[in-house]
Amino acid sequence: MQMKQVNPIQLFDTESSTFTYLLAAPGQRAAVLIDPVERHWERDLAHLARLNLTLAYILETHAHADHVTSAGRLRELTGAKAAAPSGCGIAPAELQLADGDIIRFGEDEQIGVVHTPGHTAGSMSYLWRGNVFTGDTLLIDGCGRTDFQSGSAAALFDSAHNKLFVLPDETRVWPAHDYHGQSVSTIGWEKRHNARLANRTSAAFVALMAGLDLPKPKLLDIAVPANQNLGLPHG
Amino acid sequence: MQMKQVNPIQLFDTESSTFTYLLAAPGQRAAVLIDPVERHWERDLAHLARLNLTLAYILETHAHADHVTSAGRLRELTGAKAAAPSGCGIAPAELQLADGDIIRFGEDEQIGVVHTPGHTAGSMSYLWRGNVFTGDTLLIDGCGRTDFQSGSAAALFDSAHNKLFVLPDETRVWPAHDYHGQSVSTIGWEKRHNARLANRTSAAFVALMAGLDLPKPKLLDIAVPANQNLGLPHG
Repeated sequence: MQMKQVNPIQLFDTESSTFTYLLAAPGQRAAVLIDPVERHWERDLAHLARLNLTLAYILETHAHADHVTSAGRLRELTGAKAAAPSGCGIAPAELQLADGDIIRFGEDEQIGVVHTPGHTAGSMSYLWRGNVFTGDTLLIDGCGRTDFQSGSAAALFDSAHNKLFVLPDETRVWPAHDYHGQSVSTIGWEKRHNARLANRTSAAFVALMAGLDLPKPKLLDIAVPANQNLGLPHG
Repeated sequence: MQMKQVNPIQLFDTESSTFTYLLAAPGQRAAVLIDPVERHWERDLAHLARLNLTLAYILETHAHADHVTSAGRLRELTGAKAAAPSGCGIAPAELQLADGDIIRFGEDEQIGVVHTPGHTAGSMSYLWRGNVFTGDTLLIDGCGRTDFQSGSAAALFDSAHNKLFVLPDETRVWPAHDYHGQSVSTIGWEKRHNARLANRTSAAFVALMAGLDLPKPKLLDIAVPANQNLGLPHG
């Protein structure tokens, strides 16, 4: 069944330009958070309290290299379950997600799990009510980098073209980051206009990504191990 | 008829901490912008283009003192109509709104107009699909100042308690500003917990507001006349 499109609530971290998403269906109390950021755990709990929502799941799109997740802390404080891509080494997550899985919450809400490797080998995108949460795979008019953490430009190109651009044109695209003040896009627009991925062959995209020569993320060596433990201290 | 709750798309201006809202019903192309900010007119047009939306109306909650609107420019570029509270001196707006008016757009979308004076004498709040856009009248855990532009603390208290807090508890509150990283609240939460307005008499609130002794807004003498002309140069 095609459910009516429902916008998530989009929250922003100005330090790492990370979007966190709060998903809840109209009139329902069950909620899901995607990619919550450690330093905003109180903000995120405040939103749940004010909106009278109960957290069912915390989802990670991948093991982030630029910020630390609050998934572990939120799980302890709310009793929600953590869900993460099986290929990201996030061992303590209760749900180890594979391509094609369905996460059910609330009355009849379903989140579809789509494996979209490229930024990292394990990266997942999530489908819910006419929206796709693309993590660092597909950004608005751009894409995530592919030069560390088992990244692969060829895999990212394939994920974008054969997993994401095949979704209906009107599907809303909610990325994990934006660095230019933009908030949301659609599959139709990105398929036709994305500056890196549209109108380019896989080989040309691989060459483009190889030439970017980006600096190593400042938090790489701290954030990835921390996020593989849901942001909790290794004990 | 009670329509299903639909979240707006919330956009943010980091300079003035102003929220702009993009309203569109699921599956429909007609859209409305509330309180767009001059320096983001290209961002806002980009969102309309990417989401394949057509702008029907630009709404102002009041004549802002802290930023300049892009309503006039967006009207010229899109053919949308501008709508503003009749008591705010925004003469070039096609629709001069009064309490109880209904703005219709799209297939069967209705925006209710509620006069909520206090921050300014003309300030309006807007109701749409289980949401209230409260301008500077009601903020998350706070409220707008009442010490200039025909502001009145007694009027704001009355607007909050007798126009806004009477809405259903689950109504989502989307303010014109937030200075603490919060995004959305509900009537039920604000009615019970708002630090200024809950559990306080009108007289105590008036005394509280009188004691704030806030500095004059930097842009007051520039922004208000500009906004009364929809952000366009006076010619």
